Amino acid sequence: MAQRSDAQRNHARILAVAEREVAAHGAEVPLEQIARIAGVGAATARRHFPTRRALLDAVFEERVEALVARAGELADAEDARAALLDWLTALTEYAAGARGMAVALMRDEVGVGQEQPCDRVTDAGAPLLRRADDVGAVPAGVSSADLLTLVTGIVLATEHHQDPAASAERLLALAVRGISPRPRP
Amino acid sequence: MAQRSDAQRNHARILAVAEREVAAHGAEVPLEQIARIAGVGAATARRHFPTRRALLDAVFEERVEALVARAGELADAEDARAALLDWLTALTEYAAGARGMAVALMRDEVGVGQEQPCDRVTDAGAPLLRRADDVGAVPAGVSSADLLTLVTGIVLATEHHQDPAASAERLLALAVRGISPRPRP
Repeated sequence: MAQRSDAQRNHARILAVAEREVAAHGAEVPLEQIARIAGVGAATARRHFPTRRALLDAVFEERVEALVARAGELADAEDARAALLDWLTALTEYAAGARGMAVALMRDEVGVGQEQPCDRVTDAGAPLLRRADDVGAVPAGVSSADLLTLVTGIVLATEHHQDPAASAERLLALAVRGISPRPRP
Repeated sequence: MAQRSDAQRNHARILAVAEREVAAHGAEVPLEQIARIAGVGAATARRHFPTRRALLDAVFEERVEALVARAGELADAEDARAALLDWLTALTEYAAGARGMAVALMRDEVGVGQEQPCDRVTDAGAPLLRRADDVGAVPAGVSSADLLTLVTGIVLATEHHQDPAASAERLLALAVRGISPRPRP
């Protein structure tokens, strides 16, 4: 029982370190480095996460959980447009924070967020989009998957910028506002 | 002299085939396959383009030339907003047509269009953006590099969609129109 709880603590600690390290240094950060910072042996780390890929998946899963929770918090917000924009900002920040992760996942051709936008995130955003649509705050016909794809693209294209988070935020603002929303008079 | 002209013809033919094959099958298409379709031996193809990478670079260069030429054509168009949007569409089509190329280039970490948006394309688009800005068709402070990065992101994020060109066109339209250009009344 004590052993099991140790294992759980190690698992959580490795995951937390991995999340920080990936955010700071990108997805290429070695499993050994994460183990060292988490204060566990490489063998222990490998018992919890046999491959760096397994660890990245777990980090991604944690992020998805947090995003889904955030969508839940925003679901009853009074201002439906502000709630949707908050959601898009959260989406962009999480994705941009996971520096290198989108590329790593794309390289492995799993395509989370690329080939088919992650269903859980899309589903979580759908009610926020629906409410914004109800108040006429978004163009007709926009889907939650469209928004996730656009955000994913913004994050992918800015990933190697000097300040990826700032670049992504800037481009999201442009996409929200529109490159040229109205025909000239 | 005749030999040189043969070499030039082969060069042009290999390049043209490569451009079509990359558009149809992605950047992973082998150099040997391109040589076969171009009707030249693999050794000849390799004399012109020692590596698949060299060939991809040449294809990319051709596309950039075409884009720069397109920007030149649009520079005097009467409707500055329409000219800018035509340019963005051309940019998206070219990039989306080069299926897999953005990823291939990103993998090699050259970062054309990613790390620092390709200067020549950015420079070519700048006068179109300036004219659109003069008639108030775009928000203040948008740069030509912003537009190229956004288009690159759209293409990257839709690259593995069933119909990448259609998905990219759809998302570009959304970015032009804006996810939510106006605060609700």
